[in-house]
Amino acid sequence: MYRTKTCGELRLANVGESVTLSGWVQRTRKMGGMTFVDLRDRYGITQLVFDEQTDADQCERANKLGREWVIQIIGEVSERQSKNKNLPTGDIEIIVRQLNVLNESITPPFTIEEQSDGGDDLRMKYRYLDLRRPNVRKNLELRHKFAFEVRRYLDEQGFMEIETPVLVNSTPEGARDFVVPSRMNPGQFYALPQSPQTLKQLLMVAGMDRYFQIVKCFRDEDLRADRQPEFTQIDCEMSFVEQEDILQMFEGMSRHLFKSILNIDIPTLPRMSWADAMKYYGSDKPDTRFDMKFVELMDVLKGTGEFGVFNEAEYIGGICCEGQAVYTRKQLDQLTDFVRRPQIGAKGLVYARVGEDGVLKSSVDKFYSPEVLENLKNAMNAKPGDLILIISGPDTLKARKQLCELRLEMGSRMGLRPKDKFSCLWVIDFPMYEWSDEEQRLMAMHHPFTSPKPEDIPLLDTDPASVRANAYDMVINGVEVGGGSIRIHDAKLQQKIFEILGFTPEQAQQKFGFLMNAFKYGAPPHGGLAYGLDRFVSLFAQLDSIRDCIAFPKNNSGRDVMLDAPGFIDQSQLDELSLAVNLPQD
Amino acid sequence: MYRTKTCGELRLANVGESVTLSGWVQRTRKMGGMTFVDLRDRYGITQLVFDEQTDADQCERANKLGREWVIQIIGEVSERQSKNKNLPTGDIEIIVRQLNVLNESITPPFTIEEQSDGGDDLRMKYRYLDLRRPNVRKNLELRHKFAFEVRRYLDEQGFMEIETPVLVNSTPEGARDFVVPSRMNPGQFYALPQSPQTLKQLLMVAGMDRYFQIVKCFRDEDLRADRQPEFTQIDCEMSFVEQEDILQMFEGMSRHLFKSILNIDIPTLPRMSWADAMKYYGSDKPDTRFDMKFVELMDVLKGTGEFGVFNEAEYIGGICCEGQAVYTRKQLDQLTDFVRRPQIGAKGLVYARVGEDGVLKSSVDKFYSPEVLENLKNAMNAKPGDLILIISGPDTLKARKQLCELRLEMGSRMGLRPKDKFSCLWVIDFPMYEWSDEEQRLMAMHHPFTSPKPEDIPLLDTDPASVRANAYDMVINGVEVGGGSIRIHDAKLQQKIFEILGFTPEQAQQKFGFLMNAFKYGAPPHGGLAYGLDRFVSLFAQLDSIRDCIAFPKNNSGRDVMLDAPGFIDQSQLDELSLAVNLPQD
Repeated sequence: MYRTKTCGELRLANVGESVTLSGWVQRTRKMGGMTFVDLRDRYGITQLVFDEQTDADQCERANKLGREWVIQIIGEVSERQSKNKNLPTGDIEIIVRQLNVLNESITPPFTIEEQSDGGDDLRMKYRYLDLRRPNVRKNLELRHKFAFEVRRYLDEQGFMEIETPVLVNSTPEGARDFVVPSRMNPGQFYALPQSPQTLKQLLMVAGMDRYFQIVKCFRDEDLRADRQPEFTQIDCEMSFVEQEDILQMFEGMSRHLFKSILNIDIPTLPRMSWADAMKYYGSDKPDTRFDMKFVELMDVLKGTGEFGVFNEAEYIGGICCEGQAVYTRKQLDQLTDFVRRPQIGAKGLVYARVGEDGVLKSSVDKFYSPEVLENLKNAMNAKPGDLILIISGPDTLKARKQLCELRLEMGSRMGLRPKDKFSCLWVIDFPMYEWSDEEQRLMAMHHPFTSPKPEDIPLLDTDPASVRANAYDMVINGVEVGGGSIRIHDAKLQQKIFEILGFTPEQAQQKFGFLMNAFKYGAPPHGGLAYGLDRFVSLFAQLDSIRDCIAFPKNNSGRDVMLDAPGFIDQSQLDELSLAVNLPQD
Repeated sequence: MYRTKTCGELRLANVGESVTLSGWVQRTRKMGGMTFVDLRDRYGITQLVFDEQTDADQCERANKLGREWVIQIIGEVSERQSKNKNLPTGDIEIIVRQLNVLNESITPPFTIEEQSDGGDDLRMKYRYLDLRRPNVRKNLELRHKFAFEVRRYLDEQGFMEIETPVLVNSTPEGARDFVVPSRMNPGQFYALPQSPQTLKQLLMVAGMDRYFQIVKCFRDEDLRADRQPEFTQIDCEMSFVEQEDILQMFEGMSRHLFKSILNIDIPTLPRMSWADAMKYYGSDKPDTRFDMKFVELMDVLKGTGEFGVFNEAEYIGGICCEGQAVYTRKQLDQLTDFVRRPQIGAKGLVYARVGEDGVLKSSVDKFYSPEVLENLKNAMNAKPGDLILIISGPDTLKARKQLCELRLEMGSRMGLRPKDKFSCLWVIDFPMYEWSDEEQRLMAMHHPFTSPKPEDIPLLDTDPASVRANAYDMVINGVEVGGGSIRIHDAKLQQKIFEILGFTPEQAQQKFGFLMNAFKYGAPPHGGLAYGLDRFVSLFAQLDSIRDCIAFPKNNSGRDVMLDAPGFIDQSQLDELSLAVNLPQD
């Protein structure tokens, strides 16, 4: 037996017990005739004591222990003279009777501490050492607990976890598929699923009623920060439900997760229409940890003065930053630079400070009468000491997005976005379609199986762009953690939606035939949603990147630098697969 | 709201309630002025009643309902005149007030009944209809519960479920990999994992201590019956453990599963050495639901008479089939044909019946003295009325395997292998190596990271073929449901094992370098095992094929006939992947 206790569990009550521990050497220190070793395992750190006077030989061996050696000790639990309040085991230490070295270690390439000296690349190459750091390990522990509590809740609600295949067919629409050549079917390819969307709908046709799956999904996209080629989804679908049933069910799941994992009672989730989210936050995933809502200022500032930019604008909107009138000219110039960055793309920024005397002083003072400025102050509900920031532009959507970025920036600067505060909401009533400049057609905002709101169905013929969908997103702290929709279960309505998306009946049949065929055999009304597990866990763990809650993530080139994957394969493997590699000519 | 109750929950206590139900039309029957509809959902079947006298119009609509139409009804729960004892809801029926057709269905290609008229191919093509059959659905329900109880047990034991990547590197040794071309790394390929073996060992190096994962694995093998290109593993690994710790932990898991899912208390698992399993059952996965152990008869029958076959044999073994002396000559000829089939390959079969008078009559009587025959009877411990069956041959291993097949056949014929009886055991002390005629070298029986038994390590130099491993399989009813080993954590010992397997240091470095490098940084002693979830669930569900517990299985050509996968992809996709298809020339 390698151990009788772990390194995290011994307390004063154990004093006098003889124990066997195993673990890694975190550090050793020699003080006088004593050698102290911090022994670490997954569960904690326990201090070991070797006394030169009692056993000089063994103490000598302890002095030779290196960092990250694996040892086993037998000894007696003893009360510490100087207790360590920062350590759960800090009241005790082990007087070591016997030391066995289980394995040596060469010197690790970076320190195994919460704050490591290793850079990102090095830590990823030696991820198995990086994972020894307690903060990284805790993320995986949280992820385990999170997934388990998801399963516990859904199981209690009668959901069945059903595994859908990983080797499927290439799906049209959506992102690029990863494909897998089939040796047994030469020239043919499987695809890895971007999501089990159609399969879960088939499970509803199959009468499974309540399905879920925590499942790997795959997208061969050019990787941006915080995208992984493989990611994990909490995929859910229910039959005989309306939108309200789904919102209730999954609000309940979120409540269960916050309570069981973070011991936080979250309030009832507010519901915000997509239109309101865009109007007040310039985003379909508003960060509602802080208020600072947009105020539209077209009535106040367009045509009421000589400022040409506003007079030509299609949108003028402002935010009121409480108590920020102290912002210096230099700070305001920084903000202007911020909104002018190409990623944001605003032309400029208008500001106005409300003095302690209640008088508004603005960068566009000279164009407006005092009455207009007073109207502005009132419209913004600004108090003495507040700072008003205004964005305008010829495109309402773009200007709102710019103002959204500014609002988030100010929220961060003002400390209004602490990671340990959580603000959840539902964004509902999404539009069915969005116009694609690239494709020059309406595209499904969610996916082509999303049901329109029944009351908007007549608009499909007259004004499809205004049709709202039975679609919903759950947003937490400005992050879309999940989203879904009620699906179309009526074959005729589905046909119409495909037409609006520009598919001929033949194309629709070719792309979605097997689903549409299945729907001919009694499809129940159904709907569902999917959460991004990595994102959801990252929020709970207060991480900056989803990578930090993934055991073995890939880098921005889609590489696993630890495994050195992907790699080249043998010609014989290619031959078996009836494939040849045609590298692009430089 | 589509329903207030499901079709499985109404009882006499609900009589008088007004309810809303939704589901599928299982069948309709007209009797006099009444129309009866069986309404089905995942939870059960409820009888609906439409009365012509009360609402002729609605009754008329009910008469037009087709099989598998999806309907919603509102009505009142009423006590049935003639109760159906076979149905949990058989005491009640619903007097329907309102009928809404939610979706029509064309006629399904086979009947949605436990005993369907659909053949295998048809049912797989329309798997979403096949899954509506209650017996198929129940398999998935059991699978869900099984996986959940695995997680519950392991979570309680401190295991963390950690997701390992699906896009990994191609592994040497083992079966053929499925590969995934990388667009971002032209000419390079990921591989899909055959198992997370090396990754879970890295997680032990990372200090995760107790890991598990229910995870999809992939092998591009030519498919035999009951093999799937993707299958699911319960993958487990523990640190600071010896074999005994692992056997205890996972015996506990099996006990939990049998109890929580089947309400069966299983006894302590017997442990059988691999050598004994081969000696007494001719198999490393003996079916111990019945006894009928092999008796070696070399002392009794070789050289004690004139029967040349036995006199030249390297192995003679028999089984005693209790009460089967009634077997006719014709039946015995059938058995002889059975063992002579090419899959089994025996040359012939010798039998002996013990008469009611205690006298043994054998097909080789004339070659042996009565004393020898009496010795045979005693050696076999045969009683009056028993049948002795004997196999011999020049190769012990092959003869034992033939006798194993015969034993299983007799067990089946004698009704000794009922699917609802479970006999579990551990097979331990596997050999480290087996000789490969094909490769003309020793091969790892388990995998190259398996630790030899400490007491056998000296034999590595002198007689490696006799070295036993710290490896173990869990066997239930003749099926290997899981297996694993203690791993090597010592880099020098690992190096030696690689040498014996015939790898040069360079080859070992190239194939297993990243794992061996990781082991230099303080690898803890560790070990684990993996269960085949599909097989384990199939046993619990008493299925003939693992396909029956998989929602969307593939056929023997690796095709999903429902999705029609794999399929051809666009030239543009191939170009993006820097690939060309070279179909073999006919």
